[in-house]
Order: sequence, then structure tokens, then C-alpha cells
Amino acid sequence: MAGMDYLADERKKAEFDVQSMKIVWAGSPEAFEVSNRISKLVADDPVFRKDERTMLPRKELFKNTLRKAAHAWKRIIELQEEASRLRFYVDEPAYTDLHWGMFIPAIKGQGTDEQQKQWLPLAYKMKIIGCYAQTELGHGSNVQGLETTATFDPRTDEFVIHSPTLTSSKWWPGGLGKISTHAVVYARLITDGEDHGVHGFIVQLRKLEDHTPLPGITVGDIGMKFGNGAYNTMDNGVLRFEHVRIPRNQMLMRVSQVTREGKYKQSDVPRQLVYGTMVYVRQTIVVDASYALSKAVCIATRYSAVRRQFGSQNGKPETQVIDYKTQQSRLFPLLASAYAFRFVGEWLKWLYTDVTQRLQANDFSTLPEAHACTAGLKSLTTTATADGIEECRKLCGGHGYLCSSGLPELFAVYVPACTYEGDNTVLLLQVARFLVKTVSQIGTGKPPVGTVSYMGRIEHLMKCRCNVQTAEDWLKPSQILEAFEARAARMSVSCAQNVSKFASPEEGFAELSADLAEAAVAHCQLIVVSKFIEKLKQEISGKGVKQQLEVLCGIYYLSLLHKYQGDFLSTGYVTPKQASLANDLLRSLYSKVRPNAIALVDSFNYSDHFLGSILGRYDGNVYPKLYAAAWKDPLNDSVLPDGYHEYVRPLLKQQVLTAKL
Amino acid sequence: MAGMDYLADERKKAEFDVQSMKIVWAGSPEAFEVSNRISKLVADDPVFRKDERTMLPRKELFKNTLRKAAHAWKRIIELQEEASRLRFYVDEPAYTDLHWGMFIPAIKGQGTDEQQKQWLPLAYKMKIIGCYAQTELGHGSNVQGLETTATFDPRTDEFVIHSPTLTSSKWWPGGLGKISTHAVVYARLITDGEDHGVHGFIVQLRKLEDHTPLPGITVGDIGMKFGNGAYNTMDNGVLRFEHVRIPRNQMLMRVSQVTREGKYKQSDVPRQLVYGTMVYVRQTIVVDASYALSKAVCIATRYSAVRRQFGSQNGKPETQVIDYKTQQSRLFPLLASAYAFRFVGEWLKWLYTDVTQRLQANDFSTLPEAHACTAGLKSLTTTATADGIEECRKLCGGHGYLCSSGLPELFAVYVPACTYEGDNTVLLLQVARFLVKTVSQIGTGKPPVGTVSYMGRIEHLMKCRCNVQTAEDWLKPSQILEAFEARAARMSVSCAQNVSKFASPEEGFAELSADLAEAAVAHCQLIVVSKFIEKLKQEISGKGVKQQLEVLCGIYYLSLLHKYQGDFLSTGYVTPKQASLANDLLRSLYSKVRPNAIALVDSFNYSDHFLGSILGRYDGNVYPKLYAAAWKDPLNDSVLPDGYHEYVRPLLKQQVLTAKL
Repeated sequence: MAGMDYLADERKKAEFDVQSMKIVWAGSPEAFEVSNRISKLVADDPVFRKDERTMLPRKELFKNTLRKAAHAWKRIIELQEEASRLRFYVDEPAYTDLHWGMFIPAIKGQGTDEQQKQWLPLAYKMKIIGCYAQTELGHGSNVQGLETTATFDPRTDEFVIHSPTLTSSKWWPGGLGKISTHAVVYARLITDGEDHGVHGFIVQLRKLEDHTPLPGITVGDIGMKFGNGAYNTMDNGVLRFEHVRIPRNQMLMRVSQVTREGKYKQSDVPRQLVYGTMVYVRQTIVVDASYALSKAVCIATRYSAVRRQFGSQNGKPETQVIDYKTQQSRLFPLLASAYAFRFVGEWLKWLYTDVTQRLQANDFSTLPEAHACTAGLKSLTTTATADGIEECRKLCGGHGYLCSSGLPELFAVYVPACTYEGDNTVLLLQVARFLVKTVSQIGTGKPPVGTVSYMGRIEHLMKCRCNVQTAEDWLKPSQILEAFEARAARMSVSCAQNVSKFASPEEGFAELSADLAEAAVAHCQLIVVSKFIEKLKQEISGKGVKQQLEVLCGIYYLSLLHKYQGDFLSTGYVTPKQASLANDLLRSLYSKVRPNAIALVDSFNYSDHFLGSILGRYDGNVYPKLYAAAWKDPLNDSVLPDGYHEYVRPLLKQQVLTAKL
Repeated sequence: MAGMDYLADERKKAEFDVQSMKIVWAGSPEAFEVSNRISKLVADDPVFRKDERTMLPRKELFKNTLRKAAHAWKRIIELQEEASRLRFYVDEPAYTDLHWGMFIPAIKGQGTDEQQKQWLPLAYKMKIIGCYAQTELGHGSNVQGLETTATFDPRTDEFVIHSPTLTSSKWWPGGLGKISTHAVVYARLITDGEDHGVHGFIVQLRKLEDHTPLPGITVGDIGMKFGNGAYNTMDNGVLRFEHVRIPRNQMLMRVSQVTREGKYKQSDVPRQLVYGTMVYVRQTIVVDASYALSKAVCIATRYSAVRRQFGSQNGKPETQVIDYKTQQSRLFPLLASAYAFRFVGEWLKWLYTDVTQRLQANDFSTLPEAHACTAGLKSLTTTATADGIEECRKLCGGHGYLCSSGLPELFAVYVPACTYEGDNTVLLLQVARFLVKTVSQIGTGKPPVGTVSYMGRIEHLMKCRCNVQTAEDWLKPSQILEAFEARAARMSVSCAQNVSKFASPEEGFAELSADLAEAAVAHCQLIVVSKFIEKLKQEISGKGVKQQLEVLCGIYYLSLLHKYQGDFLSTGYVTPKQASLANDLLRSLYSKVRPNAIALVDSFNYSDHFLGSILGRYDGNVYPKLYAAAWKDPLNDSVLPDGYHEYVRPLLKQQVLTAKL
């Protein structure tokens, strides 16, 4: 970095080796090398600059995204398997995300070998551009309720794709609005009058010659979304079919088929494969949560060290905001969460590999648990990250409200993660159902596995009591795990008992759903805590690195213990005195992390380009840059604003006498 | 409303008289009449339409705001004292907010009679337009740390206003960037080398003839802020002074003066007047919180009744989302909060009147309590409202992310309320200091007054235990009040005791600030609960109205009791069993409010124009209107997007062979 480093003193305070922590964060020396190189490549390329994004009107913004995507394509060809890192550092939602992330995987996962051979080469070369058209105007989470129909016509050997109602209009798919030439469309398969439920079909939308929509197809953008820049770089689209015909072989037929005669068949490929895909997608969302939260935390931490407020004495400068305990008690748990989510995301990668290998060996035994676990962690981490980004924005005071702080866009572009790929509340209820089922199977000889294996010790967990007598006792991993296990187990058991009191389980589930969701949260927090603790049992090299992670782990679980004190107290595992000791320890850990705070966010190795925030600048040179950025606003193009002569001058010059208002 | 009413069935379910509730919400029949009339007047005037606001680029957006402000001015002259309602329903931040809301009140409050006579007529007629230039690039909450200087020059009888550093640049004042001709500027008063602290000065910024900045003045807009539309209609500005001279009589001299000779004097006008102004401003913020939250709740409630998801059986339509307990447990506490904040805001109006009358009689005894109370309620209600708006957005599923839902803009325009006029965390700490002081004074013969009067019963509150034995026991107002009083009192006492264990109170306050903030929240929640209960003791007419409000009051306090269970359990007033009974009662109250939900949000009497949300439409005709709105996006102006020929077509036509990615 050129110029003065205003955070140099902060960096000197660090009690650990930052380079080693960077490798821990990246996952491996190799992963660090790739990230570091590609991050620089993107930051140094003027096409990828993003500081004007929040000022551009929609059309220009979108055009600029197309430009970046075309430019990235050249790089992607060179980079090969590192291409996904490039898209990551370009940091701008684009139609290519859906093409690579949804369209191609859908064909790979659900297409036959023949279909893959036909379509994938075209897609890999981007001779066609595809999107994923599932949700409809009236149908989101409930995929089985989709209304679009695909009716087989045996006379012509075709499917007729049709939008029978307004609410059946496809709505939201990214890349659909203006760009995609093709889509994987989900529709109700109908053969000979019979409805076989929702299946996927490859449908061409636009002519390859001139990009105009094919006959029978109405397609467009659904309009502005939350935030400046943000997801408005994406052409989320609306799509209607008026009896559009496609050849029979464009139904994705790996799992089920329609024959030339119109007979519906299911192959012996297990349907559970779908869950494997879900585990994959949600695992990537958890990993992304740690990146998004860490960006916000990096910005807020650096600016909290730059910013001074109150407390000046004898003409000395005011106190750095990061030295206030209120600031620490809001910021440091988020810093700890960023690390916690990073490690649980890493573990989920392993889980996905494990599930995939088992599926290939026809072992479905761990799938329900893996599915519940990823669903729950997706919900937990995205909710915490969305809230955490907004908290970081508030922690930056008024300046966090400026687009140049980067935080408004980070929030606006992140929040859809709470809704897509499974609404977070719906997911928690799925986890809760799994937990109640697990409780009901205890003692049936089917021991709970994986992240619910603690339920196997239910008798102990129902009656044990916390042994903590001093604040330091809360540092023992076994003590913490027991506390989180006891809380989760007791809440699950209590829910299961209460559900069984209703006339039917369904009525019980419906009536108690808010409590069930809380039990699911308790279980998911236990997973994150236990994976953080497991990580610390591994060998971690570098001076002071493990010690820092231990402090962060402590902050993570103790801040949860404090925030969810009600759970721990009401389930009777912890006494108020013990909870109070945990809070004392938490406070002392804040002091331990304080001198390392800047180094801990430096360890993310984010470039100023990637952060996209003046407040989060590496060199801490915030105020001159904020001042300079202001003048770039279009309103400052001229001294007199447009409209002055029409709407302001007449006011100032008018002579009407008015009463006191 | 013309056309079909898709929510008609919901409206038929209501068990109370909506018109009577509208009057309760408005405050009086007269207030209802004015609001109703002016709301219609604004909604029917095409100049005030706002549906395109989120699509306009900054310059056009700002020009359109100037147009609205000029148009509103004509109406304001006709409407006289109803003008503030007009600005409320126009619902768009504009420079006029600062002119009427800050510049004029500052002159009224801090100017001498002579100064008022000189400046106010010009301001009332808008022959000059003013703003309020307090915060600086490096200085927000800590007003005493401002750096701008106003140095008296006795040779010319002038003040020299100067920005000595970059961080002293005025930053944020609304209306400053492009429009204001004048400002009340806060600067350190320096006479004969002595610094007398921060004082206010009237400074002309721009020439009245051609609107260009006066010599020595650098002024501009600070750039884009969070959200589409939102506060980008406002020209928040940056301002620097290079030795700008103003006549001595432009210092606001009501409280302190500088004589011709340069002598600094203080008049006998009490400085506490400043606190009176703060009480006023914060009271209006609490009232606004109830309006903002009620808008979001209205949108989310109506759309939750329109939207269906899952649960379809035998071909019947899916379940209305509002029937899910998870939806109810998130939505109905916010509905209850909107009413709770409305009533506490009403009470604060009374408090302000009371304080004003006492100040006029030189009675300052209630001022500290009133100041702490309004500071705390400002913090509590704005935090809850900002979070609540975002929660309402999530409760609308994916469509809440569209600007046409109105919720993104409502959030983005609202969140600064958590920071301006006192950062919410800083305010909580002020309340906590007041509480600790109150605790320390118990038994000194100075009985606590107003909202802390419960501290007078501290002995009882420290030892009493909850008597609840059945869920219904939690309906007793006296039981609820004791629970909230005991919790708040015990947390305050515990903080006071812990603070006293440190070497100095200052160290204790610093170290325990996170706990202190929690005690302050407990106290403020008690105020809101007790004012809701007091409201219910008043005569409330109209069939079923009082019953509905009782249900909402119950939901308000029981949802707090559940969310803050940890406080109630750790302070030992409530047992886990009693907390669980409260939760059972809460669930049953959700069922009671369910059939009345639509009518309860209709009672806000918000026009579709004011709501600005397709999801929140009165007639529930959501999907056709969402569909129609999509096509208005600029991206849909043409079939091929700008950039297609340059950046997409070359991709689709390229022939480069690439490896599998």
C-alpha cells in the first residue's frame, strides 16, 4: 500500500502471526495463493472497478455488468478451474452466476448422459446462456404448488409449455429478464390428462440470431430491487408461455422419463439425489455468509479504530470508538461469528463430499441428518449475517449510511440469502421436525448419527447440571459443549412432548411452530460451536494463531450464552450466577481481542477493491477520501441543481404574505 | 376504492368498529378529519405521485423533489397550521424539512427577540431557505468536540467563521448541499484567544441573486446514501469556510452574548432550555416511529392475507400465510408495537407540554427525568422500528425485495433515525447513568418522580415474587407491571452495585456499559408497557375497540417477556414454569388477533399512495399489479438491452474452445 498507514500502530499491537492466520482463513497455503493472486488481478483491472456502481441509473448499471461479464469471460478461459474465484472477487451479481451456478448444474444433475452430451458443450462455450426458471409470481417455497404446465402431445412427440394463470408467470429467475437464451423451466408434467408433479425442461427462450423472444414467449425484467447497485446488476425476470412447444427430449430425464408413447416412467436413480444437490447449494451459501459477514466486520473494525468520539482530556485526541465496551460487545461477537461461520462452512464442504461418496455407494443413511444440518446452518448463518451487516453499518455511525461506506450495498445485496434456496423460517421448521423425529426414535435401536449424535446421551443431558464455579470454568470445551447440548436436547424434548399433547401431530406442529423454530436454532448453534471447538483441536501453526482463535471461539459461545440466557436458564442447566460468570468472562475476552482486532480483520486478506468501502480502507485514511468521493456525485456536476430556475428561484423571489406556520 | 376487494372476506371477520379505532389511532375525531382530508388531497394530486421514485437517477430524483416542494408550498399557504400534515403525507425527505423543522426552531429557541424579528419573517416567507449545520466530517454525537471556529474580530465587529481542518468540514446537514441560502452554523466561539465552547451563528451561504456560493464558502452534496429513492431526495451537504466574515449580530444571542468590545456574557436564560428542545425533537421521533412501523406492518399484514403457501389439500387453495403461527409470532408483536409506540408517543406529547409549562415557571425538577425518558424512548422505538421494518420485509418473502413492495425504501429512509438526534447506544447509556443515579439517591429523601417513581418501592421490588399460577393470571395489569418493574429495578440495582466495585465510577461505567445498556432497555420497555396499560384505563368508545387494544397490549408485553426471558429469570422474579405459561397465553392471543388483523391495519387509515406498496394495496389485488409494474422498469424499454451488441452477442458467437470449468 502506498502512502501513510494510519492503522500502523494498531497493526503493531497484534500478538499473532497475521500471515499464518491468512492461511487458516483461506483454508490452505494453496487456497491462499490462488485467492491472493486473483484478488489482485481483479483489483488491478480497471474494467472491474465498482466505485461508481451505486450512482449509475439502471440501464447504465446493467450495461456495465454486461461489459464486466464479457471481460471476465476472457479471463475465465485463461484461469480454468480458478474461474469461480474470479467471479467471487469481481463481486457483482450477473447473469453468468445463474448460467454457471444453476443452469449447468441442473443439466448435469438431472439430465441423462445423452442430454449432457448435447447441451453441456454449448453451455460451457457460452454458445447458449441459460437460467433456472423455477419460482412463479404466486409460488415460492412450495415448489410442488407450481402452476406452469408441460403437457405431452403424443401426436407431435412434443411438450406444450403453458402458463395457465397470471400467478403461474415465472418470476425472479436471474439472467432471465434480458439475457438468457435458454432456461431450465420447472413445470407440472401432464401425460394423458394425468399430473405427475413438477419436472424440469430445457426451453429455448430467445432466437440465437437476433435475441428476440421466440413465438409464444413473453419475457422481461421484474424491475428495481432493494439498494443502490446491489442486485440491480441482475436481470431477474418474468416469463410467460403461450402453448410453447419443445421436443420430448428436452425434458430432463435422468430420474423420470416420458416415452414416445407418452408413458411416464421412473428410473432406478434414487430421488434422494435431489437432496445431495440441496446440500451442495446450501453449503456454498454458508461459506458465502462467512465472506459477507467478514467484509462488514472488516469495515466496521477498521473504522472503529480510525473514528474517535468523546473522552478527550487535556487537549488529547478523543477516544477511539473501538475502545468502548458497548462497541466491543456489538462488534467482537460478529468478528467471532465470521470466523465461526468460516470453519463450519469448511466442515460442510467435507460433509458434502462424504454424502456424495455415500450416495455413490447407495448409502442413504446419513442423508436426512446431513440435509437437516445444512438446512439449519443455511438459516442460522444467513440470518446472523444479514443482521450482522446492518449492525456493522450502525456501528459506523452516520457515515455507514453513505454508499461510499460500502455497507448499504453489502446489506442490500446480501439479504435475499435469507429467502432464496429455502426461506429461513421454513428451513428451521424442517430442522425442528427432524429433531422431534430423532427424539421419538430414541431407544428404538436406531442411534442418532452425526450432528444429532448427542441425542444418544439424552438421559444424561436431561438431568445434568452445570458445574461452573468460576468464570474461567467457562473456558473448558467439555463444559461448553455440555451446556449447548443440554439446552438443545431439553428444548427438543420439550417440543416433542408438547406436540404429542395435541389431537394430531400436525396440529401440534402448527400450533407450536414458533417454539419449534427456537429449538432448531439451539441445535444449529450447538453445531457451529462444536465445529469451532473441533477446529481448535486440529494442529494450527503460526505464532499465537491458535490462542487468538481460542479467544474468538470463547466470544462466540459466550455471547450466544448471554443472548440466549433465557433458554439456558429456563431449561434449568445453568443458574443465574453461572450465567453471570459467563458474562464476566466474555467481558475479559473482549479486552484480549482488542489489541488484535485490526490484525484479525487484516487476516481476511481483502483488498480495498473487494471491500469497496472508504471507511474500511486498509490505510485508515478515511476522511480525505470521503471528502474527495463526495464531489463525484452527479448532483455536484453543476453549481445550480437541475430544477433551480423552475422550482427554487420562484420561491425565493415570491412576495406572498403567509401566516405563521 | 374501485374494483374488486380481495380482502373483503377478511374485513368481514373484524370484531370491532374500525371507524372508532381510526379515531383512537388518530388521537381525536378532529385529528382524524384533518389527516383523512389531507391524505386524500396529497394522494389525488398527480404532482405528489411517488411510484417512479426508486427508478430515477439522482439528478432527476432531486429535481422532482424540488418540483414537489414548490408545489407543496402553494398548498402550505392555503393550509396554514395543517401544513405539517401535508409534508407528512407527501412522504419525501426534502430541504424544506430542515428549513421548517430545524432552521426556524433554532432561531426561535436561541435567537433574541430582535434576531427573531429580523430573520423569522424572511424564513416564513421562504425568501431565505435555511439549514442546520452542526455535525462535521469527524464529529457526530460529541457536539462539544466540533472544530469549526467563530473568532470575534473587534476591529470590524465581525465573527470570522473558519474550518481549520479537513475533519471540521460540516458534513450531513440536509438541505445544505444544493439549496439552502443560509445556515445556522455551530462553531467554537473564540474571543480574545479564549475558547467559550460551541455556539450557533446565522451564516449566509449563497447569493440570493444567482444562488452561487459566497466567497470563502465551499459547498456541495455528500453523495449517494442507502437505498433507492429514500434519502437521496435530500441534498445532505458538505461545507467549508475560509475565513468567512459575518456581522456580530448573527451570533444567536439568547443564552449568551458577545459585546461590541468582545466580552463574553451569559444571560439569565437557563441553559436547561436546550433540554426542552431535545425533549420536543425526540418526542416527534417517537411519534414518527409508530407511523413508520405501522406502514410496514400494514403492508406485511395485508400481503400475508393475500399470499398463500403450502398446505393445499384436495385441490383447495393453499393456506394463507397469515394463518401460520410462525408468521403470527413475528408479525403480531410488531402490530402490537405499532400501537404501543403510538400511545407512548401521545403521552410524550403531554410530557413535553408539561415540561414546557414547568420551565416557564422556572421549575426544573422534572427535567432530568423527562430528558432521560425521551432519550430512552427515542432509542427503544427507533431501534425496534428499524428492525421491525426489515422483519416485515422478510415476512413478505421474495417479493418484499422488490422496490414496488415499498419496504426497501421504507427501511432505507427510516434507519438514520437510529443514529441522528442521539445515537441509540449513546442514549441508552445516558438513561443508564440516570438510573444508577436514581438508585444511589434512594433513601436520601429525594423521592424518584415520573417514570422512575417505581424505584420508590425498591424494597418490595427487590424481594417480591411472581404469583402467576395459570396462564390467565398474566392478563392482570398489576401482575404485568410488577414483573416489568421488578426486572428493571433489579437490573438497575445490580448495575449500580457492580459499578461501585470498580476503582472509580467512571471505570465501572466504561467496563459495564453493555450491561448498563440492557438495564436501560428494561426500564424503557416498562415505560411503554405502563403507558399502554394506562391508555386502556381511559374511556375508549366504539364496539369492541377496547377489547382489541387489550389483546394487542397483551401481545406487546408477553412477547417482550418471552424475548427477554433471560432477564426475568436471571433476576429471579419469574420461574421457568411461569414464563412458559406466559408463552402459552401469548399463543392464544395470536388466535384472537388473527380475525381482526386486516381491520387493525385498516385502522391506520393509510391511503395506497401513502403506503406506496403494491403488496400492501387496500384491495389486495397484488399479483396483476406487480406484473404490470414490472414492465415500467427502464430495462424493459427495449427488447435488446443496451450493451447486447457489444458484450453479449460476441460471447454467443465466439468459437473459442474452453476446458470444462
